[in-house]
Amino acid sequence: MTTRVVGLDGDDTLWHSEGHYITTTERLGELLAPYLDDDGSDLDHARAVQHLTEVERRNLARFGYGVKAFTLSMIETAVEVSGARVSASEIQRILDWSKELLDHPVELIEGVQETVDRLAGSYQLLLVTKGDLLHQESKVARSGLVERFESVHIVSEKDPATYNRVLAGTGVAPQEFVMVGNSVRSDVLPVLELGARAVHVPYHTTWALETVEGELPAEAAHLDRIDELPEFLEST
Amino acid sequence: MTTRVVGLDGDDTLWHSEGHYITTTERLGELLAPYLDDDGSDLDHARAVQHLTEVERRNLARFGYGVKAFTLSMIETAVEVSGARVSASEIQRILDWSKELLDHPVELIEGVQETVDRLAGSYQLLLVTKGDLLHQESKVARSGLVERFESVHIVSEKDPATYNRVLAGTGVAPQEFVMVGNSVRSDVLPVLELGARAVHVPYHTTWALETVEGELPAEAAHLDRIDELPEFLEST
Repeated sequence: MTTRVVGLDGDDTLWHSEGHYITTTERLGELLAPYLDDDGSDLDHARAVQHLTEVERRNLARFGYGVKAFTLSMIETAVEVSGARVSASEIQRILDWSKELLDHPVELIEGVQETVDRLAGSYQLLLVTKGDLLHQESKVARSGLVERFESVHIVSEKDPATYNRVLAGTGVAPQEFVMVGNSVRSDVLPVLELGARAVHVPYHTTWALETVEGELPAEAAHLDRIDELPEFLEST
Repeated sequence: MTTRVVGLDGDDTLWHSEGHYITTTERLGELLAPYLDDDGSDLDHARAVQHLTEVERRNLARFGYGVKAFTLSMIETAVEVSGARVSASEIQRILDWSKELLDHPVELIEGVQETVDRLAGSYQLLLVTKGDLLHQESKVARSGLVERFESVHIVSEKDPATYNRVLAGTGVAPQEFVMVGNSVRSDVLPVLELGARAVHVPYHTTWALETVEGELPAEAAHLDRIDELPEFLEST
């Protein structure tokens, strides 16, 4: 069966996202470093950032993905790293960062607009993305791409069960589906498990909780840039 | 056309929700009252609670609904009401409340189990609920009701456009649909606007941001208890 339906991930596949989280994490590191040691050194900064990753991991099953979960984990990190000395104004600063993150304009990754335009002529396109429901909807709307997609699926976790539900709900067989995204953990492995195809298009940076050990499986394709996708799909 | 599909709201229609938010709001009032005046009186308590409603209203378009949005607004309220004097340990206490809210067992409202069982024999059932994606999914799963529903729709806002999308996506005409829920603003008005029917089953308390001015529209039905629903639908 040939590919009929292309699923595309949103954050860091169609538009920039992780960079904004990294900038905010850096700000948190700067804010907290002085609490760890008087000298506020790079080492203190790194320890604060590492603590945030631990708190996010601990909170993931409860809070899920997205800016609000990230912000609650930043606040918890601030309380813990400071030994409960962080001030209310510093907490407010963290809340202000969360609003900046939510308000940030959607910036498409280079090549996305032309690629999506071109794919839409030959395939049915599904957007499959995870994170805060409202924020993802807002990003999809502001991306200017929404009319190219047959349907948009904002999900709480990208596991085989989720992809199965999306495919069943849209009447698509795994054999006619290919998923494209930057996360091996979320966009590649669960899709291969269903017997569908997956194309990994890495972003220059990956969130610690999305990284996986080991190599990209042999069944997965790898492209350096999303604008290589139309030719790749035509040739395979 | 006769009713073929019944939409049911989740929070405060199928299971208890608002009561947990009210309990948490009361705790916040107690925590903040001493910051407003030395005597920590009932008036101070009420002012703190009122301030939370204002912050929630201001943050609604950005944060949306659900426990994480509520928690971020509680923290912002704590900073503001205390004049930035709230302590880090008090902030941590608020974070702990959010985890309690997310972990709280799902308690079905009296009559729900039998009503849903009975309705499922005669109608296609849709669950249409708003809030945190992950938390709502978790509540739906823990409710034990999920097999009774043809599909579950967790949405960021219950407006006519949303209901239109849900009905179009499931191939249901407005004339064969009735929505049942406790919120006039979210479960009744937008549904009537589409030309579908709506049944209001009030909960004993309603969140300030869900209240609407004026009477229930004449086209909407009103039932005191959800277990009156099967007979009502058969008789109309």
